[in-house]
Amino acid sequence: MSELARVSLSIEEPLLKSLEKLTRASGYENRSEFIRDMIRDRLTLEEWKSGADVIGTVTLIYNHHHRGLTEKLVELQHDSLAHVLVSTHVHISHEICAEMIMVRGNGEKIRQFAGTVKRQKGVLHAELSMSTTGENIS
Amino acid sequence: MSELARVSLSIEEPLLKSLEKLTRASGYENRSEFIRDMIRDRLTLEEWKSGADVIGTVTLIYNHHHRGLTEKLVELQHDSLAHVLVSTHVHISHEICAEMIMVRGNGEKIRQFAGTVKRQKGVLHAELSMSTTGENIS
Amino acid sequence: MSELARVSLSIEEPLLKSLEKLTRASGYENRSEFIRDMIRDRLTLEEWKSGADVIGTVTLIYNHHHRGLTEKLVELQHDSLAHVLVSTHVHISHEICAEMIMVRGNGEKIRQFAGTVKRQKGVLHAELSMSTTGENIS
Amino acid sequence: MSELARVSLSIEEPLLKSLEKLTRASGYENRSEFIRDMIRDRLTLEEWKSGADVIGTVTLIYNHHHRGLTEKLVELQHDSLAHVLVSTHVHISHEICAEMIMVRGNGEKIRQFAGTVKRQKGVLHAELSMSTTGENIS
Repeated sequence: MSELARVSLSIEEPLLKSLEKLTRASGYENRSEFIRDMIRDRLTLEEWKSGADVIGTVTLIYNHHHRGLTEKLVELQHDSLAHVLVSTHVHISHEICAEMIMVRGNGEKIRQFAGTVKRQKGVLHAELSMSTTGENIS
Repeated sequence: MSELARVSLSIEEPLLKSLEKLTRASGYENRSEFIRDMIRDRLTLEEWKSGADVIGTVTLIYNHHHRGLTEKLVELQHDSLAHVLVSTHVHISHEICAEMIMVRGNGEKIRQFAGTVKRQKGVLHAELSMSTTGENIS
Repeated sequence: MSELARVSLSIEEPLLKSLEKLTRASGYENRSEFIRDMIRDRLTLEEWKSGADVIGTVTLIYNHHHRGLTEKLVELQHDSLAHVLVSTHVHISHEICAEMIMVRGNGEKIRQFAGTVKRQKGVLHAELSMSTTGENIS
Repeated sequence: MSELARVSLSIEEPLLKSLEKLTRASGYENRSEFIRDMIRDRLTLEEWKSGADVIGTVTLIYNHHHRGLTEKLVELQHDSLAHVLVSTHVHISHEICAEMIMVRGNGEKIRQFAGTVKRQKGVLHAELSMSTTGENIS
């Protein structure tokens, strides 16, 4: 784990009071933690914009009775320019499958992968979640 | 203007370095200002969720040749449960008007107003911007 | 106003039922209107990504007692690479002003303008709303 | 699979042209599919607002050297009011772990779960992805 630095911050009195209320309302025990998490969220967004190496998760809902779809989804994962790390499959109902696919690579490539997956016939929903390798936010 | 308080913040060394890069990349001259602006953005979002008194701007694109639309838009502004502060009209082309309407009130009421405006025939686009009265963020 | 075309759409029976519920729940009287508005929202987003000519509104909350700020804001509006169409000022309290500024130009330039405005000292909040000239969505 | 209904839609000529461009630019082969996917996205958002049964995926980046964190994360998954379906763990580096957790339940409960996970010390990033059981969109 990294060493903690101590930095000081100037802040208007009323804004400080509002920050303290917000920290508690968000369930955080201390202000530093809350601010650090805000910084991390912002950094993660920047990594996605800047083309840095990032982690994304694609959550996928599909009908596995749709002919050829299962094979196609496997194929897409193998062919993707973004590197698929792992994929987990859950049976939601007789027909419906949910899958979460973790992908690593450039943000734009991951978006393309998610888009291609979403456009397949039989895929009902696909949602991309933007995360981070943790390298710049730890 | 409010007095500035000085608070200190503990933060992991590498996260501090990333924050400094981000501050510069976002065009800010100092870290405190950048963090204060992040806090203000978060507080504004909370005000919209919590039902506090907020400011919203509805930007509206419409075809003023659409029969009865101009009267209807004026009427909606007068009848709204959220308080319309001001409205400015811009001529974009022979047919197209842009209007920005500033509204004050409860976030949910403002959303309803924006939704009603958007559903009118002849209205091509309506977009709500979520702002603040500044009371809790100054 | 444009002539209406009639196109047909194939859609799964249960999805059609869900669409009808959603149309009513969103306060629309007919399905065509609801779908057209969804298309317009998507097109507007694309215009912002593609660098087309768009309309944006910046809503700005600031403390007019902050020294030099009023002049600076006027100057920024005159110098902006995106074209400022109009700006409306509202007095929220003794100290706080709200302003809505309508801007036309390339999406990226408008974003830069909004960012610069937001970073000024004394500016408490600035929010950009992404709209359209209406040209491709009417 | 569901039977396809055929519905017709009235749409302004220029808007239809813009839709066709957008369909191709989004990589879709036909208009019906593109519109159906837009409807599904909107329905999924509504399910999250309305309290219906939904699927969410929490992507989590954390430092597994942080004392007690691994146990705490397992405990939180067992105690959650939203039902955790499955969780997959990936080793990103010597210190950093990525985990994706699929959860089913009420949207608000899933949000609370994601928030609690995010606030744990040692958790660097947590991002919630909003998906659907597929029941109302197939």
